[in-house]
Amino acid sequence: MPAGTPKPAKVTVSADDLRALVAGIFTARGASDADAGCVADALVWANLRGVDSHGVSRVPRYLELFDKGESVASAEVSVQRPRAAIAVVDAHAAPGPVALTRAAAEAVEGARAAGIGWASVRGTVHTGAIGYYTSQIAAAGFAAVGVVAGVPNMAYPGAVGPAVATSPLSVAVPAGRHELVLLDMATAVMALGRIAQLKAAGKELPPGVAVTADGQPTTDPALAKVPVPVGGAKGAGMSLVFEMLASGLAANPIVSAYHAGGKEGRRHRQNAFLLAVDIAAFLPLDEFTAAIDATVDAIKSLPAADGAAEILVPGERGRRSQADRAAHGIPLGPKAWRELTEIATSLDVQVPAPLG
Amino acid sequence: MPAGTPKPAKVTVSADDLRALVAGIFTARGASDADAGCVADALVWANLRGVDSHGVSRVPRYLELFDKGESVASAEVSVQRPRAAIAVVDAHAAPGPVALTRAAAEAVEGARAAGIGWASVRGTVHTGAIGYYTSQIAAAGFAAVGVVAGVPNMAYPGAVGPAVATSPLSVAVPAGRHELVLLDMATAVMALGRIAQLKAAGKELPPGVAVTADGQPTTDPALAKVPVPVGGAKGAGMSLVFEMLASGLAANPIVSAYHAGGKEGRRHRQNAFLLAVDIAAFLPLDEFTAAIDATVDAIKSLPAADGAAEILVPGERGRRSQADRAAHGIPLGPKAWRELTEIATSLDVQVPAPLG
Repeated sequence: MPAGTPKPAKVTVSADDLRALVAGIFTARGASDADAGCVADALVWANLRGVDSHGVSRVPRYLELFDKGESVASAEVSVQRPRAAIAVVDAHAAPGPVALTRAAAEAVEGARAAGIGWASVRGTVHTGAIGYYTSQIAAAGFAAVGVVAGVPNMAYPGAVGPAVATSPLSVAVPAGRHELVLLDMATAVMALGRIAQLKAAGKELPPGVAVTADGQPTTDPALAKVPVPVGGAKGAGMSLVFEMLASGLAANPIVSAYHAGGKEGRRHRQNAFLLAVDIAAFLPLDEFTAAIDATVDAIKSLPAADGAAEILVPGERGRRSQADRAAHGIPLGPKAWRELTEIATSLDVQVPAPLG
Repeated sequence: MPAGTPKPAKVTVSADDLRALVAGIFTARGASDADAGCVADALVWANLRGVDSHGVSRVPRYLELFDKGESVASAEVSVQRPRAAIAVVDAHAAPGPVALTRAAAEAVEGARAAGIGWASVRGTVHTGAIGYYTSQIAAAGFAAVGVVAGVPNMAYPGAVGPAVATSPLSVAVPAGRHELVLLDMATAVMALGRIAQLKAAGKELPPGVAVTADGQPTTDPALAKVPVPVGGAKGAGMSLVFEMLASGLAANPIVSAYHAGGKEGRRHRQNAFLLAVDIAAFLPLDEFTAAIDATVDAIKSLPAADGAAEILVPGERGRRSQADRAAHGIPLGPKAWRELTEIATSLDVQVPAPLG
């Protein structure tokens, strides 16, 4: 922009308004009211939690996938339950939140029936923040594990170029006095969305986060092409076995198809699995949640290192953001807001007035 | 040792002889033949795989625990199966290999019944290499996940001193032409046993592996007291939620008891869980293993980075060690061999002749 032009300001939108806006867009593109609400809930949750890279800024990308036929707004997921504790949710290219919300319900159903439930998800797109689904399961009183597998976009020790995906792992458990504990981590040192934010801002990357196209370490946002796995072989190995579990059991391999070459293999798609464990089958739920509270208290009461303001447990930062943004609205960058409003206008969906 | 004294040589012992030696020691200390064989198999497997820190060098430590009453060689594990897919294996302080071998069988039984099986292990000691148990499950045609929780010995972001444990994660899946894929990783940057090896050798540690007692980064083996979690908050968060899953569901919290202080809270003990997924409930097993083969082939065929001799998948290095050591014997350090032979002699257990 020309010198002297003021930087476009962020707008702040209430979570309810943002959900209505996103749901309106998806409904206008052919999703049922229930499915549109599902996508809106998942994306706005990510914004509430402060994970803006997985929030409503993804809406244009879903619409591109609809345009290309790589995702189908009106797709109806189908569910097979070959055994009491396992389900396979075939997304038929429905958006991730639709497929994974269904999978979360199926995992819980399996856990109610047999003590533990597993739901594989085959062939969806952009799941959003996997922690949304594990949180839902934990909020129902179950322990939850979730993994997403996708198209390679991360380095692998000894190899050049994208080899495996930044596949996230999430674990959520309910607590008592405390909010539920929620781990939601990419297998990369730094999540792709965060790298993209730094690149967009032209900011230097921290060392050890990404490599160039030919595999050389770099901190230059212009040269950084491939994110690096956390702990080298550890993060890469986790990502690889997550692909084997998520895509292998869904009978829909992504990594091998990608490296076989061809357009089809490189098409964006994701598989996933969610696991629910019925805590009450092991011990009374309130005894479990009291033990989780005691564990959280023990960690937060440890002697603090020099310079550490406080000690956080997984999910705590996100919960604070959620409380703040639920009360005061969600700040959106000018680009994200402009894209959303243009899409909404083109679809005759009402654009809410920002809070500020 | 005085200058000029030759360094004591390693001895090499066949895997069968080593198993018989260890089994003899445990039998002499009161374990049943089956349980003694179970411990011997698990420890020697770790040596075969090249994970010597989890192998037969641990035998004296088990015996110390027997002496202190913190582990019981003759303990009979008990199993509750509250629901079709879940089991709780109470170790009653039996050695880890006894409890986890039983848990692996229980997880498979749950998976046969319901498609997926979960076995929690309550109150054991030293599980050895968790990959041994997930490998057993995978060798039976199931996908496997395993986690161990233990007494805090690892740093946590923002805190000084040991906060959480270096709790490992293992995932194993069967392949077809290839050997099974086996991830077995500590949540620390470097496994405790490896740090201990470097410290014992007086070698400088790599940077970023450990901190001093007051939390300062160090590479000095004499000052390094607390290993650092892989990826900072990621490894620490994984370890914390593993404690919540493994110890929480086993109704036997370790981390909170440890930080509450007192001798009892600091006593060595471990909990764990193993998960088995019946692949054949999702798709024909040979289709799954063919997909795993294709994924392994895809990774190993990637363009190699400068200086990389080859690209390895999880478990490949261990499998090569296993083939080599099964054929040529297991090299043991002089201290480990001396301790084993002294223990054996004191118990009238026959000491095998080393291969070299």
